[in-house]
Amino acid sequence: MFKTTIKSENIKAITSALLAMVREAKLDITPEGIAVKAVDAANVAMVYMDIKKEAFDSYEATEGELGIDIAKLDGLLDMAEKDSMVELELDEVAHKLNVKMGTLKYTMALLDPSTIRKSPKVPNLDLPGIIILKGEDIRRGIKAGSGLSDYISISIVGEACIMEADGDTDAVKLEIQKADLIELTNNGTKDVKSLYSLDYLDKIGKIAAKVLQVTINIGQDFPCKIGFDMLEGNGNVTYMIAPRVESN
Amino acid sequence: MFKTTIKSENIKAITSALLAMVREAKLDITPEGIAVKAVDAANVAMVYMDIKKEAFDSYEATEGELGIDIAKLDGLLDMAEKDSMVELELDEVAHKLNVKMGTLKYTMALLDPSTIRKSPKVPNLDLPGIIILKGEDIRRGIKAGSGLSDYISISIVGEACIMEADGDTDAVKLEIQKADLIELTNNGTKDVKSLYSLDYLDKIGKIAAKVLQVTINIGQDFPCKIGFDMLEGNGNVTYMIAPRVESN
Amino acid sequence: MFKTTIKSENIKAITSALLAMVREAKLDITPEGIAVKAVDAANVAMVYMDIKKEAFDSYEATEGELGIDIAKLDGLLDMAEKDSMVELELDEVAHKLNVKMGTLKYTMALLDPSTIRKSPKVPNLDLPGIIILKGEDIRRGIKAGSGLSDYISISIVGEACIMEADGDTDAVKLEIQKADLIELTNNGTKDVKSLYSLDYLDKIGKIAAKVLQVTINIGQDFPCKIGFDMLEGNGNVTYMIAPRVESN
Repeated sequence: MFKTTIKSENIKAITSALLAMVREAKLDITPEGIAVKAVDAANVAMVYMDIKKEAFDSYEATEGELGIDIAKLDGLLDMAEKDSMVELELDEVAHKLNVKMGTLKYTMALLDPSTIRKSPKVPNLDLPGIIILKGEDIRRGIKAGSGLSDYISISIVGEACIMEADGDTDAVKLEIQKADLIELTNNGTKDVKSLYSLDYLDKIGKIAAKVLQVTINIGQDFPCKIGFDMLEGNGNVTYMIAPRVESN
Repeated sequence: MFKTTIKSENIKAITSALLAMVREAKLDITPEGIAVKAVDAANVAMVYMDIKKEAFDSYEATEGELGIDIAKLDGLLDMAEKDSMVELELDEVAHKLNVKMGTLKYTMALLDPSTIRKSPKVPNLDLPGIIILKGEDIRRGIKAGSGLSDYISISIVGEACIMEADGDTDAVKLEIQKADLIELTNNGTKDVKSLYSLDYLDKIGKIAAKVLQVTINIGQDFPCKIGFDMLEGNGNVTYMIAPRVESN
Repeated sequence: MFKTTIKSENIKAITSALLAMVREAKLDITPEGIAVKAVDAANVAMVYMDIKKEAFDSYEATEGELGIDIAKLDGLLDMAEKDSMVELELDEVAHKLNVKMGTLKYTMALLDPSTIRKSPKVPNLDLPGIIILKGEDIRRGIKAGSGLSDYISISIVGEACIMEADGDTDAVKLEIQKADLIELTNNGTKDVKSLYSLDYLDKIGKIAAKVLQVTINIGQDFPCKIGFDMLEGNGNVTYMIAPRVESN
């Protein structure tokens, strides 16, 4: 069973964060909360998210898996009134999710979890560089790069975080000194730099833009992790993106 | 002759309400006001509207018929400044309507009334169900159905008004109890339900959304009437839509 | 050398005003300021602009020519934060313009000035009619004409400024009396009227709409000049448009 109520802006925050990476997802439901691990269609990036039951205004669930059309649910939530409550209830017999928003009840077909891309194993990465910054700062760098190139590098050079994109004739560089970051740590002995696809970063940047504190973990030509807390500390989401290794 | 001044937002309310159903209309002008009866191109729906001369800031007219390109007039009015007056004056010699908005004068060709679809006879319907509700409530049900289906049903079931649309896998239902409606009356002995095209309802819903009190009259597999007062009680508009009878 | 800082909204005002006419321009740089003269691709219109060094918060320059992709620079400036400073610095060795907006540095390739359309010679016109009006008034006339026709006439008839456009069946006329203008002067002995392409006027109108005081100089079937001060009096821009002479 699965029956819960949650503020409309909170469930919207969950669907938006997932939608930055996948259109469909398998939710792992337990009595303690919800976990999602999903990999994008190109196997370049993944998202994992944990939501504690405390993020919900009421929450009752037994263990189970729900295949959700995230894009559809996200669209539905636009019909919820501001500051209203959304009720989600699994109809196990009909295999539907009932989404109740005030007087409006939407009956949404569930997806067969076996048709959804398998949850990825989250790799254990040793990433020496840690950058903690305001979401609007990461958004700014990504946006500036997007018009110019398909790729952007993220690096720690000495005491600064640098994001850099090169176009055919132009280039753009966002350089933020340690003093203007929330935190900058390099546990390695050398500067680190990796190159990532702006396709992925652009979607993540739009979500991160509204977040006060975003943590980036990077290494040298290595996947990065970009994550932040959500739902007043009762949830968190992390995106992991494979690097593009520059050929020489 | 026809010469009038009217607040820009009031003439805009008139053109918008007509434009939900027709792009051209024949206005029946009398010394007492203006009446419009128009049927849509597919003969599925009609609109009728009465505007008393009191809705105008000044009004002088003799009996006559004006063929108006409603879509064009509606567009023109976007050039009027907020809270300004619009002057409409018939130039009988040139067969034009002069639309004056401040320093701007637009000379609009009239349409030959004989080229406009004939005014329909408004049928006398005996509709047992009466639902009076806030415009935003009807808009909500229509909008929710629009993404899912081409049709939506409106029904009175016991003490509730229900709007329901069924898609291939999903369904949406708006259920409002009598207590949350302005009025709910069923003069028949059974529940009533009819199915309507969302194409028509969607346009009407957009207009009705801003209205405090909308009256729906329905029967069993019968046309419905959706109407409301406008212009501070000096006008009213009613839309009538043929039902789609479900085949079994 | 060329190195300057300027408020982001001021440099945006400069690029927007130029972009109404040209996508690329040659800037004539002197120690005293910047001048631009550019003609549009069809040779129908030109823009000339003078910016005093006082418009900048800091300004150091030796004489030179800079070929700038105005459309690109204008787009870049959307990344500047509100009320922030933009630094422009010429890198003579790399032949680039460094555009610094806070932590963001954009390196923009300069255009070879010899590839840009030659600066036009500004003709010395004797235009008897002078109309000074609010930018929103000229915008209104242009916008009203745009839906109707490709051309609009501007005239001084007696004590009024008139803008008039004729469509196939409809016509629009903006008539502003001298009392509602900032100034109206006709130094000739007859009324004056000229016809201009709305393509050009539309773009100029959008820029002029925000300006408190716009000066139009016109003659009889003659080019017009439309100009205004900008940057708190430290700059000005003038557009000149060739008339379309009506054939009879």
